[in-house]
Amino acid sequence: MRSLFVGRFQPVHKGHLFTIKQILEKGEDLVIGVGSAQYSHTPDNPLTGGERVMLIKRAILAEGLPIERVDIIPIPDIHIHPLWVAHVKSLTPYFDKAYSHNPIVSSLLSDAGIQVDSTKLLERSRYSASHIRDLIRWMKSDWEDLVPAAVVKMLKAYNIDKRIQRIGETTLKR
Amino acid sequence: MRSLFVGRFQPVHKGHLFTIKQILEKGEDLVIGVGSAQYSHTPDNPLTGGERVMLIKRAILAEGLPIERVDIIPIPDIHIHPLWVAHVKSLTPYFDKAYSHNPIVSSLLSDAGIQVDSTKLLERSRYSASHIRDLIRWMKSDWEDLVPAAVVKMLKAYNIDKRIQRIGETTLKR
Amino acid sequence: MRSLFVGRFQPVHKGHLFTIKQILEKGEDLVIGVGSAQYSHTPDNPLTGGERVMLIKRAILAEGLPIERVDIIPIPDIHIHPLWVAHVKSLTPYFDKAYSHNPIVSSLLSDAGIQVDSTKLLERSRYSASHIRDLIRWMKSDWEDLVPAAVVKMLKAYNIDKRIQRIGETTLKR
Amino acid sequence: MRSLFVGRFQPVHKGHLFTIKQILEKGEDLVIGVGSAQYSHTPDNPLTGGERVMLIKRAILAEGLPIERVDIIPIPDIHIHPLWVAHVKSLTPYFDKAYSHNPIVSSLLSDAGIQVDSTKLLERSRYSASHIRDLIRWMKSDWEDLVPAAVVKMLKAYNIDKRIQRIGETTLKR
Amino acid sequence: MRSLFVGRFQPVHKGHLFTIKQILEKGEDLVIGVGSAQYSHTPDNPLTGGERVMLIKRAILAEGLPIERVDIIPIPDIHIHPLWVAHVKSLTPYFDKAYSHNPIVSSLLSDAGIQVDSTKLLERSRYSASHIRDLIRWMKSDWEDLVPAAVVKMLKAYNIDKRIQRIGETTLKR
Amino acid sequence: MRSLFVGRFQPVHKGHLFTIKQILEKGEDLVIGVGSAQYSHTPDNPLTGGERVMLIKRAILAEGLPIERVDIIPIPDIHIHPLWVAHVKSLTPYFDKAYSHNPIVSSLLSDAGIQVDSTKLLERSRYSASHIRDLIRWMKSDWEDLVPAAVVKMLKAYNIDKRIQRIGETTLKR
Repeated sequence: MRSLFVGRFQPVHKGHLFTIKQILEKGEDLVIGVGSAQYSHTPDNPLTGGERVMLIKRAILAEGLPIERVDIIPIPDIHIHPLWVAHVKSLTPYFDKAYSHNPIVSSLLSDAGIQVDSTKLLERSRYSASHIRDLIRWMKSDWEDLVPAAVVKMLKAYNIDKRIQRIGETTLKR
Repeated sequence: MRSLFVGRFQPVHKGHLFTIKQILEKGEDLVIGVGSAQYSHTPDNPLTGGERVMLIKRAILAEGLPIERVDIIPIPDIHIHPLWVAHVKSLTPYFDKAYSHNPIVSSLLSDAGIQVDSTKLLERSRYSASHIRDLIRWMKSDWEDLVPAAVVKMLKAYNIDKRIQRIGETTLKR
Repeated sequence: MRSLFVGRFQPVHKGHLFTIKQILEKGEDLVIGVGSAQYSHTPDNPLTGGERVMLIKRAILAEGLPIERVDIIPIPDIHIHPLWVAHVKSLTPYFDKAYSHNPIVSSLLSDAGIQVDSTKLLERSRYSASHIRDLIRWMKSDWEDLVPAAVVKMLKAYNIDKRIQRIGETTLKR
Repeated sequence: MRSLFVGRFQPVHKGHLFTIKQILEKGEDLVIGVGSAQYSHTPDNPLTGGERVMLIKRAILAEGLPIERVDIIPIPDIHIHPLWVAHVKSLTPYFDKAYSHNPIVSSLLSDAGIQVDSTKLLERSRYSASHIRDLIRWMKSDWEDLVPAAVVKMLKAYNIDKRIQRIGETTLKR
Repeated sequence: MRSLFVGRFQPVHKGHLFTIKQILEKGEDLVIGVGSAQYSHTPDNPLTGGERVMLIKRAILAEGLPIERVDIIPIPDIHIHPLWVAHVKSLTPYFDKAYSHNPIVSSLLSDAGIQVDSTKLLERSRYSASHIRDLIRWMKSDWEDLVPAAVVKMLKAYNIDKRIQRIGETTLKR
Repeated sequence: MRSLFVGRFQPVHKGHLFTIKQILEKGEDLVIGVGSAQYSHTPDNPLTGGERVMLIKRAILAEGLPIERVDIIPIPDIHIHPLWVAHVKSLTPYFDKAYSHNPIVSSLLSDAGIQVDSTKLLERSRYSASHIRDLIRWMKSDWEDLVPAAVVKMLKAYNIDKRIQRIGETTLKR
């Protein structure tokens, strides 16, 4: 049994890890799809797809979870919902089931004949990547409690925290 | 004489039919362009392009209008306005004139040397697809007065009303 | 029961019509997908998608076939095979079955759980759009036997035969 | 020494010219990148890329600046920030340095190893293309003080001021 | 030290594994980029990107290599060479060096300031994915010597060998 | 009067310059469209769009032609012929007439209502960019007679001649 779990992981946090652990503990192998993978350097998507793959892997290894049972796959957005499930399937190892808490994702998956399951969630307003990006922007150090320690360390080592602050709410348009 | 009429038809309603009838009654054949055709399963574009073609045709047949004088053509968005008229022309049978009440569409068409005409409109705030989607979401049954009976029947038979409710205002981002 | 039949129709010929008739005679409604719809003005794709819709419709009407049982839908190429079936489904009215003589198309359709059927074919080397384009280029008038009379008339009236000759085998690159 | 300066120039105004002069006076040749070049006929991007090239050149010539030291290059948006610097470099003559006041642009450029410099600015809230478009829409003639006289003349001669008014805040969706 | 190695892996064979082993034995971690990842079901690209990820991982595990030191990342083609390095970097974990035997890839990488290294190769005409696809098409069983046993088993279990035969040299065009 | 002249300029040669001079001598201003502008580092398109802009400008200046009467505009390929004229018009200053010796380009331009003119040509088989690339690949120095001296110098100074040799006939596929 292999299951799919898709997120944007901007950045990966303890809520993601909580979901990942539950799925692995049920004995299901896991394909982690990193959504909007082509984007970076925007307020909502500060990290590149590759950076997110790197952080997720580090978090899994630091937690002592079995990395050989996990695939981490960047999934670029195609912006055309009716093709999205076919797109995800073409880029990922075969999976039997998918996890999602988002009604559109669930509805696209189940319309395509894929069983949708769910996990327990940590407190959703705190363990939210959008909330964590805001805390980083406002220079509030309590974001560090919401993110795995190994990830905090990498975000600082690679100055990704500074990138999040600098980009703030501006956009590329001059 | 063949005329173009472009809309998104999310969903088709009696206002659309009112326009279609006026054009046919003037003796003009009709190309109905179904805009944003590649999109579906979003709050603003819940139906697929193909579903919209299917509903428009059903509405025309149910009304007893001459389907052999009508072409119904899905037009995907290209998101680049200065190419839009060339794009529409490449996907549609030849037409001599176009109908539009939107100032950008009118301006693109007339800049490309195409004559732009208009029709009388039903009360615009009521006969509006956006208003109808809201009524469906709020479970107000009076949307059924605004949509041709044959279309109401199909929207229910294919559970498209339920899709509109489920998608609500969420987006694909996890 | 509604069936899908996809071709490029560059141009529509009697072989296409032979297939269309067989399907309608079995009592199945028909969605005709016009493939590579965005292309035109190349040696392999001289006609626009819209011109092909127009010619197919004319051929069907001239033949006295029931146009109200037929949808003619331009399908732009997306060039990514694993998304192609989802793409076709999103642009077309619901269909239950598909016709194809091409092994890749058949394999994509049946992998997506769609039943694939076939029809009898006219002599394939003669009733071939590629052969017909060559005859037009070589100024051999016998192409007119291979194409429905109503279509021959339109190809000449709109100077599309001349376009095919002029474009020949050159390409856009200067 | 050749420097890059990217803007959208919707439309070109005296603030742009002030920057261009400073760079040329420092003895640096100049590549002017016209961003979002493929867009036009929207409220934020009313002019085509080609119109903007034409207006910038006219402004430079009218000012008596050395056009032979300037390249004016349309740069279409690609909407994928991590590829943007490579995209700009592929479309422009070689440059050694770039000017920008936008933090994302600066950060993308410097992450790619390109030196980022800046110039003095005219009062930013007045000399802003967005402000100028608003003045044109509200029919306030004082926009003419903010734009080089040669550009004012062209905007009127080609009815671009009228296009800006007509498009207003509507969008292409019917 | 982390190194990049890009291939199309249609399918993965012993030559790929020979390269992978050499890199790991030098003590370098490895990012395996699966090129042309969005394509499948064509004569040159029969397997999906996801299937190739799955096969590479299986081959690595079967060989007893340290999977925790390897990332396997699908890289869709963008078809614009001057953006390719930025594209690869945006989708992959940070890498310090790259391996390639292809002169264009090497030249793009080194122009972007990335060190390019190479490995010893198995006999190139035999250990070639294109040669292996031909052997499968011609039903010659000796392809099985060129591919790791675990991969042979999966190709058969999932009927991918049959897909390669069926697709042959035809194309999607009807 | 302003005229359009489109080419790929891979690289610019004396035949191009011969055409440019004839047009300027007729008193027409000139928009030079650099086609396939997004491509580089392939056997057919070795130079970037920006490099080609740079070389064309240098050739014009070295020849003492009036650069203020010339615009040099990169035009990315869109690969959809029926949209091509609208695409070119959106990226270029207004033009009244176009020059082309290619039948498809001529036919697209004149179908769009644009007057097509032509110039005298230098001996076409010699003054051909494709022939010049071959000479460079085969290390035959006589290519230097076919290219303006100022361009020869830049091609060597920037090692573009070496890039053409190195890329040869290989492709990006591993």
